[in-house]
Amino acid sequence: MKAIGCHIIAEFSHCNPETLTDLNLIKDIMVKAALEAKAEIKETAFHRFTPQGVSGVVVIAESHLAIHTWPELGYAAIDIYTCGETTDPWAACRFVADHLEAQDLSISEVKRGMSNSRGYFSHAFSKTHITGGLKVVQSA
Amino acid sequence: MKAIGCHIIAEFSHCNPETLTDLNLIKDIMVKAALEAKAEIKETAFHRFTPQGVSGVVVIAESHLAIHTWPELGYAAIDIYTCGETTDPWAACRFVADHLEAQDLSISEVKRGMSNSRGYFSHAFSKTHITGGLKVVQSA
Repeated sequence: MKAIGCHIIAEFSHCNPETLTDLNLIKDIMVKAALEAKAEIKETAFHRFTPQGVSGVVVIAESHLAIHTWPELGYAAIDIYTCGETTDPWAACRFVADHLEAQDLSISEVKRGMSNSRGYFSHAFSKTHITGGLKVVQSA
Repeated sequence: MKAIGCHIIAEFSHCNPETLTDLNLIKDIMVKAALEAKAEIKETAFHRFTPQGVSGVVVIAESHLAIHTWPELGYAAIDIYTCGETTDPWAACRFVADHLEAQDLSISEVKRGMSNSRGYFSHAFSKTHITGGLKVVQSA
């Protein structure tokens, strides 16, 4: 079955906590990550929490990128979801991991919108839980 | 391992195509779904495509809700991601399925941000691919 979208779900551990708490920096990283994926940006919505943490989403013509950060834990939850043949969600994933200085990465790829002949859409996961930092993502 | 967040990934098939193409209605459904989940809304970002289709995200204090629609296929891809003990992402899922008149639902729950003693965060899936409409979600 052919999928309409590719959705990367990632937990990044041992990130730079100063980066994770900086709204403008996080927004800049996510917007540039969307461009790295060759996506077309439509809308952005970011919010900084008190005392810390940032949540934000970049709506793209090809779906969305999202981030939620827990600076006190060095942890960020990332979603990179793109549709179509022209985008590269893994390029965005590498870019975000690099700029958050993530040391450990737990990543799964979800094929979204796999259809059968009756017009029923489903999804499928391929899981890649890995420790070891950036090099793993770069060779994915 | 305890998880920080619960992320419902859903593909809804055989939805009402008129609803799927109406930006204001989709936004209204997603905002109300966030409230159904007892989430606190922080930001919204929605976009309507030409000739059809809507993408949008509701950033909540507890993470985000997202939707992407393909009216011509009767298909919508939904993400409902909440953190904390006070929210009910399944209530939001039921609300969206109900208001899109989704007949077939493919749903998985992802536990996000499961940590071990070394501060390494990962995730885990429980998959529930089901045909049969709303009653399945309501009994989940």
